[in-house]
Amino acid sequence: MKISLKEGERLDDLQCMGYFIIQNKEKFCFGMDAVLLSAFAQVKEGEVLLDLGTGTGVIPLLLEAKTKGKSFVGLEIQEESADMAARSIAYNNCQDKIKILCGDIKEAVKIFGRASFDVVTSNPPYMNENHGLQNPSLPKAIARHEILCTLEDVIAQAAGLLRSGGRFYMIHRPRRFAEIMSLLCQYHLGPKRIRMVHPYLNKEANMVLIEAVRGGNPMVKVERPLILYQEPNRYTKEVLDLYGGSK
Amino acid sequence: MKISLKEGERLDDLQCMGYFIIQNKEKFCFGMDAVLLSAFAQVKEGEVLLDLGTGTGVIPLLLEAKTKGKSFVGLEIQEESADMAARSIAYNNCQDKIKILCGDIKEAVKIFGRASFDVVTSNPPYMNENHGLQNPSLPKAIARHEILCTLEDVIAQAAGLLRSGGRFYMIHRPRRFAEIMSLLCQYHLGPKRIRMVHPYLNKEANMVLIEAVRGGNPMVKVERPLILYQEPNRYTKEVLDLYGGSK
Repeated sequence: MKISLKEGERLDDLQCMGYFIIQNKEKFCFGMDAVLLSAFAQVKEGEVLLDLGTGTGVIPLLLEAKTKGKSFVGLEIQEESADMAARSIAYNNCQDKIKILCGDIKEAVKIFGRASFDVVTSNPPYMNENHGLQNPSLPKAIARHEILCTLEDVIAQAAGLLRSGGRFYMIHRPRRFAEIMSLLCQYHLGPKRIRMVHPYLNKEANMVLIEAVRGGNPMVKVERPLILYQEPNRYTKEVLDLYGGSK
Repeated sequence: MKISLKEGERLDDLQCMGYFIIQNKEKFCFGMDAVLLSAFAQVKEGEVLLDLGTGTGVIPLLLEAKTKGKSFVGLEIQEESADMAARSIAYNNCQDKIKILCGDIKEAVKIFGRASFDVVTSNPPYMNENHGLQNPSLPKAIARHEILCTLEDVIAQAAGLLRSGGRFYMIHRPRRFAEIMSLLCQYHLGPKRIRMVHPYLNKEANMVLIEAVRGGNPMVKVERPLILYQEPNRYTKEVLDLYGGSK
């Protein structure tokens, strides 16, 4: 399928099922966190998924490619990102299975209705007012800082959107970890599976992957650590494998 | 110093500063968790520490040996364990720095007063009514199951006992992790430092070490994972080093 790229945009190979994605490096490009979250999330045959704050749609694209889920919805507040996501989906001929909607995470339950998804994913803005300089470029700032929605908004909406027993997957920073655990418990999302991501085996974690179950008991399994680099510029085998996954 | 061992008791080498400890393997012997907690806890010069549920006193003994803390108190509800702890302390000539008190964790704030410690440590019973067969031998069951105190009791008392800025150190099971994080936040103990303990690099965590600060913000650092075994029956260098620590 032919596609028209707008100024500043480029077409990047997702290295998964031959899919490509439209990005604009002046705005926001997906990072390894989106790839890790897509690998961590489990989507079963026939399940319906919503990605909160989908950006250019990388998570729905990767999960559509890698799982047997029935349909995938991406919600994104920034029109420009949502537009890129929609064009990427058209380019990959996924319009039947992936839908992109431009809208506010805080309105998600109103938009989609309660208990309407089996799986909710989110790679939300990591930084709150307590840390990190806000990026002067607004699109990047909205993707990275809690300007338009807070961690609590994301968790509260996820809880409302999931059916009982449905699963919420999120990647976030370890520094917010205690807050995340408290909020999940408060909104009746029982944390089930946690995986710490360390750049090197002997370094502190820089990301954390979390699975929580709607209405589930908070009985946690902390999986083996995910180590990114074996040595500088050399990924571990597990990370290399992540970039080559398929159905 | 001479010491009289009671029936079933033995004198074990703590492999630290030449200290020994009296234990009774029919009752309860300390495990690697106590050693890991003692290595994880930081006690500064002149600080005053309380160990909640000290058993035979292994944590006060190891921390007195390894740090420059001023004084160490162990609180233990089981008379027989408290008596063994007191005799071990006498045997090691530590009576000036370590005191053992037989009493209930739930009464700790009443016994010692609010904000009376710089550091509180605990290696509490791990298992609640939801899991694990209760050991038919009562002393072991009390040490392992929440029969006489719950996780919330331990955390609530620790919060009351610590001065503002004081530090709480605990080792527990990952399955209770979400509950621990929620309770710590609820009682204004801000989780600061977490370390997951994995038997092998490619296995899920079986213990978690936690540092929380009284009145601190919940801003977490997840340290590099602690791996116990390199291969079956062969500890990693880090674990071998733990058993040889000194001041």
